[in-house]
Amino acid sequence: MSSHWGTKLSFSIFGESHGAGIGVVLEGIPAGERLDFDELGRFLLRRSPGRSSLSTSRVEGDEPEFLSGVKDGVTTGTPISALIRNRDTRSSDYAVHLDVPRPGHADYSAQLRYGGHQDVRGGGHFSGRLTAPLCVAGGIAKQVLSRRGVTVGAHILSISGIYDRSFSEHGLSLDELSGPGKKSFPVLDDSIGLEMVSAIESAREDGDSVGGRIECVALGVPGGLGEPMFGGVENVISSLVFGIPGVRGIEFGYGIGAADLRGSEHNDGFELAENGSVRTATNRHGGVLGGITTGMPIVVKVGMKPTPSIAKLQRSVSLDRQEEVELSVKGRHDPCIVPRAVPVVESAVALALLDLMLLG
Amino acid sequence: MSSHWGTKLSFSIFGESHGAGIGVVLEGIPAGERLDFDELGRFLLRRSPGRSSLSTSRVEGDEPEFLSGVKDGVTTGTPISALIRNRDTRSSDYAVHLDVPRPGHADYSAQLRYGGHQDVRGGGHFSGRLTAPLCVAGGIAKQVLSRRGVTVGAHILSISGIYDRSFSEHGLSLDELSGPGKKSFPVLDDSIGLEMVSAIESAREDGDSVGGRIECVALGVPGGLGEPMFGGVENVISSLVFGIPGVRGIEFGYGIGAADLRGSEHNDGFELAENGSVRTATNRHGGVLGGITTGMPIVVKVGMKPTPSIAKLQRSVSLDRQEEVELSVKGRHDPCIVPRAVPVVESAVALALLDLMLLG
Amino acid sequence: MSSHWGTKLSFSIFGESHGAGIGVVLEGIPAGERLDFDELGRFLLRRSPGRSSLSTSRVEGDEPEFLSGVKDGVTTGTPISALIRNRDTRSSDYAVHLDVPRPGHADYSAQLRYGGHQDVRGGGHFSGRLTAPLCVAGGIAKQVLSRRGVTVGAHILSISGIYDRSFSEHGLSLDELSGPGKKSFPVLDDSIGLEMVSAIESAREDGDSVGGRIECVALGVPGGLGEPMFGGVENVISSLVFGIPGVRGIEFGYGIGAADLRGSEHNDGFELAENGSVRTATNRHGGVLGGITTGMPIVVKVGMKPTPSIAKLQRSVSLDRQEEVELSVKGRHDPCIVPRAVPVVESAVALALLDLMLLG
Amino acid sequence: MSSHWGTKLSFSIFGESHGAGIGVVLEGIPAGERLDFDELGRFLLRRSPGRSSLSTSRVEGDEPEFLSGVKDGVTTGTPISALIRNRDTRSSDYAVHLDVPRPGHADYSAQLRYGGHQDVRGGGHFSGRLTAPLCVAGGIAKQVLSRRGVTVGAHILSISGIYDRSFSEHGLSLDELSGPGKKSFPVLDDSIGLEMVSAIESAREDGDSVGGRIECVALGVPGGLGEPMFGGVENVISSLVFGIPGVRGIEFGYGIGAADLRGSEHNDGFELAENGSVRTATNRHGGVLGGITTGMPIVVKVGMKPTPSIAKLQRSVSLDRQEEVELSVKGRHDPCIVPRAVPVVESAVALALLDLMLLG
Repeated sequence: MSSHWGTKLSFSIFGESHGAGIGVVLEGIPAGERLDFDELGRFLLRRSPGRSSLSTSRVEGDEPEFLSGVKDGVTTGTPISALIRNRDTRSSDYAVHLDVPRPGHADYSAQLRYGGHQDVRGGGHFSGRLTAPLCVAGGIAKQVLSRRGVTVGAHILSISGIYDRSFSEHGLSLDELSGPGKKSFPVLDDSIGLEMVSAIESAREDGDSVGGRIECVALGVPGGLGEPMFGGVENVISSLVFGIPGVRGIEFGYGIGAADLRGSEHNDGFELAENGSVRTATNRHGGVLGGITTGMPIVVKVGMKPTPSIAKLQRSVSLDRQEEVELSVKGRHDPCIVPRAVPVVESAVALALLDLMLLG
Repeated sequence: MSSHWGTKLSFSIFGESHGAGIGVVLEGIPAGERLDFDELGRFLLRRSPGRSSLSTSRVEGDEPEFLSGVKDGVTTGTPISALIRNRDTRSSDYAVHLDVPRPGHADYSAQLRYGGHQDVRGGGHFSGRLTAPLCVAGGIAKQVLSRRGVTVGAHILSISGIYDRSFSEHGLSLDELSGPGKKSFPVLDDSIGLEMVSAIESAREDGDSVGGRIECVALGVPGGLGEPMFGGVENVISSLVFGIPGVRGIEFGYGIGAADLRGSEHNDGFELAENGSVRTATNRHGGVLGGITTGMPIVVKVGMKPTPSIAKLQRSVSLDRQEEVELSVKGRHDPCIVPRAVPVVESAVALALLDLMLLG
Repeated sequence: MSSHWGTKLSFSIFGESHGAGIGVVLEGIPAGERLDFDELGRFLLRRSPGRSSLSTSRVEGDEPEFLSGVKDGVTTGTPISALIRNRDTRSSDYAVHLDVPRPGHADYSAQLRYGGHQDVRGGGHFSGRLTAPLCVAGGIAKQVLSRRGVTVGAHILSISGIYDRSFSEHGLSLDELSGPGKKSFPVLDDSIGLEMVSAIESAREDGDSVGGRIECVALGVPGGLGEPMFGGVENVISSLVFGIPGVRGIEFGYGIGAADLRGSEHNDGFELAENGSVRTATNRHGGVLGGITTGMPIVVKVGMKPTPSIAKLQRSVSLDRQEEVELSVKGRHDPCIVPRAVPVVESAVALALLDLMLLG
Repeated sequence: MSSHWGTKLSFSIFGESHGAGIGVVLEGIPAGERLDFDELGRFLLRRSPGRSSLSTSRVEGDEPEFLSGVKDGVTTGTPISALIRNRDTRSSDYAVHLDVPRPGHADYSAQLRYGGHQDVRGGGHFSGRLTAPLCVAGGIAKQVLSRRGVTVGAHILSISGIYDRSFSEHGLSLDELSGPGKKSFPVLDDSIGLEMVSAIESAREDGDSVGGRIECVALGVPGGLGEPMFGGVENVISSLVFGIPGVRGIEFGYGIGAADLRGSEHNDGFELAENGSVRTATNRHGGVLGGITTGMPIVVKVGMKPTPSIAKLQRSVSLDRQEEVELSVKGRHDPCIVPRAVPVVESAVALALLDLMLLG
């Protein structure tokens, strides 16, 4: 069930980059939820290619056709399915990779698993394009969560070692959280954003690519969700986030850097808020203790590798001829997928939290 | 199913730190596997407390009684169950934490979820003690993997910012991989190990604690295991590893630092080995591309927070009296759980890989 | 995950009777399987409506469009998805049933679950039409099984108390097993079939409907598949078969009648076949002992209720007006769904057995 | 995950008939449920052997030791585990069956699956004894359901073709439903019960055995539980019930006999109850339409085969010597397991309904 995920909320993603279409079957969204398709469209636009000179020149509408599960704009309670037709495909670019695997891509490992039957065009089922249906599901989850008081937002935390500031640890507002998503380049500090853009452009000019980090926060998540040991918030989110192509690591709260702190530095003391509720004075735990939410903001950080498709010459081998060759990857590729991945990470986190919330 | 994990290989972990006992039901181990109980005993000893001045003074045999699934030392194919009785418990230490949650612990989040019915003694089901049955399952998985040519090893990569060297990227031998596990303090470089020990002792003297990182490698994993998008090696391993108390982040291969590299620096070129097989010249991808193994070593790095239980005064609140208080955590606690967590990480990685291997 | 089923082989079914379309996402079919679309088309035709005067006059091509997972007629190993567009729908027939639930239908129970948001047109997601995508998945499974030596066939065992003979217990040939599926009315004994047709016609003339039984056998299933206690062949098949609308009971081997036999009458003695292999002299156990296959034919019998949609006046209530009313169900309905359900039962059994086979 | 079952409520059963012990790990029971251990003990006694001359002379206390998940008699919310030690075992009786499989038992199919490594003593993991931990879980589920207004009861519907009357279709009271469970021979009509006892005794005298049917009803189940297509009440219950050794078929409501009725005879018309609520005038649908509960009583009927272990001579083969032999099964066996299976069926139904209820 590798392209299927979830428990009470669950979904199956299908399709290949250059096949007839891609899509998602989403189950478990409660009946009676009115979907705002304009909002969904705007959300999907955030991951669409072709929005700026920074991303692949492939242009697709990516408008999903809803085939089931929604009637008169309201969810019926049975599976929601959405189909996105592939249109602008140039498959001839890819034929070579069945013979000569691209470094950093799944060409070689897919060959081992599927014995040459995999659809290699555009990366097939491994393509970043498969994150479009993930965003259809995620965009719906975000709307359902929003009605339950939960807001999920994200921004580029770093690109090529250039860091945006983090979301505020104290007093993070919905405006701050949702701000980056409204920008064409989703950062908190636009001047830093310009530096990042320069780094991306520079990589493109060199026929190269860059990676980066994304920070995602969920505000308003009620306490008491999730369970030890393997049903914890971190387990559930990470099982989904690693489905996003290019993710190499995930951290929660203060993250892996906690390894360098002392307990007295890392522990978040408890205090009473003005309204008498219990909260932590700081949020290094990122809203999760023992796998269970504390009511504080959920903080997730994801590290993404640089796009593996680069024009620069790379070493590879011809599987047929059993000889080493040099390869320059053709085709239209983003020199940096991080900006487009921001709504994808939001989607993954939203879907994970909604599943936990519906499980209760 | 929070304390249950797995697909073809699966297990359920039960118990509380200070209850009658803890244990595991492990399903899916093929019939006919001879278990080496001496080897398993040595493996369990690696996570046992009370081995040195560095860990909690609680002494437990942790010898599992096998209740089913093994006959004359050989697996029957039906569920293997093992029980570890709790003996040395001093529950009176913990009564206070139902009222005053310990910072960094699950006391407060468990209170939100279980409404005061949770077993708070020794952390209950949240205790690090629950990693003992995980190691029973993991130790068995390691033996089964070993017979199939797969070896899993790990070492302390850092404590308190003091770094051991990494496992060799080229020519990693079984000796090097298994070496740390044979030491009482599992590092590659013993002189670095002494520095780490000093840092831990120093934290203890201060009534404080330290965290660290663990690097785990699996050698001999065949290519072609795992599947996109959510059945990938990273998804499966992380869904299990975050069940280990204290883990705050996980990375694969070069890890999150990939975010700072260019594609030309991060991609691993393919080459032909002397025997004609395909391999990558480097292993920044950590043995996984597109969620599927490439036949190169699987590399996993985990970051663990400092032990939350510290003697130093911390801020907390009395939930009953609704007032802020100061707290010094009593009881016997490791100032650093990282050394004992090394076999636990090995267990998690071994179980995940065996599940993928049995799924085929 | 109610419309999702399976473990290693798994699928999600989506759609509503009168929505945009219905379909299936099928995961786990091995890479490299060549699909025979003509054979699949013939199989789907067996459950299509409009083939004779006996079934609903709704005419649909039911030709699936494959959106992914198949390239040049061969499976890629990643999810296969197929879409069947709905065309010939007359939704106005159904509006009333949101207010006045049809006896024997899911109108009322769906109202309780979905609070009026369910798509009631044509039964929505509860429609027998959803068995079309199940047959797409099942038809593929049958082809894959066939290449592994397993043949699944079924016939009408009874309609309205009129019984066809059972498949031969001894020496059942592929011809006998596949014979009924080649007929427009799938029975073994055509003279009995004519009696059944009369009974159906007679019910139609009375504005009424009839039910019946289906017997399904799988030949060539290797021994040793399935597991105690909840992974047994019976558990797996029944968890799928009860997804077919109208099924009220399921039996294996000699079935529930075993309750009336003595052990000496019901036990199947073992004997040696001429080639030295072990087999049972009789097959009252239906190929499964302790949940595990014995290598003998798998025998499944299913009982289906009469079509609930009948023209005859029935008692119901107006949910809005809170008053009792009389109802005559309009629309185009089969007076007996059993003949069309035969390939659906074959599909369910084939999918269950293929999942067990792939799990190993 | 063959010995694991469930979604939100889930459990793993372990053990072999003649091993160290058997038990269950039960997850998902809400925190804060007070368990009545006396009531549980009485419930377990209903399936215990050795209560009368009718069952095996093996005497076991079957008192479970609770190892976790319960504190001061109240559930903690984390996994409940219970262990039943095996004491009275005479394993020498069974050695022969590794060579000569017993007709009607899993000896031969287990041999195919586990290659001779299975624990054959007393049936090993296939033994009816494994229903004891199922009853521990089921007895707990019954208590939790009871507090939510749901009562599950069952009785022997037939033995050897001798039928008890069914539970009343109209006005079934809690007294009637719970009555059979209070008797040593669980029937509604005690004079029929005496006839059944005679039939069992007669079979025993002949060195033979008899089978029977069990009817189980759940009262008070709220409407709107379950989901199409594979998450329906029938799918969920049957996936569990076929885990009970000896079950050959399952029916819901009027059952398979519905196949012989016309729609006008089988459909249950809706009517208004005196309090204005909607109900069906009859209950041939057995409380489930489209997989979803209607609020009417859930009716399940199960058919069980005669005990396969009989003293009468049977045909078998020696697997080692490859020759046909005659076999008389030694050991202590019930000539009829149906009476003891009544609480087991109640357990299965209760666990299935509680899982659906908790899933919501």
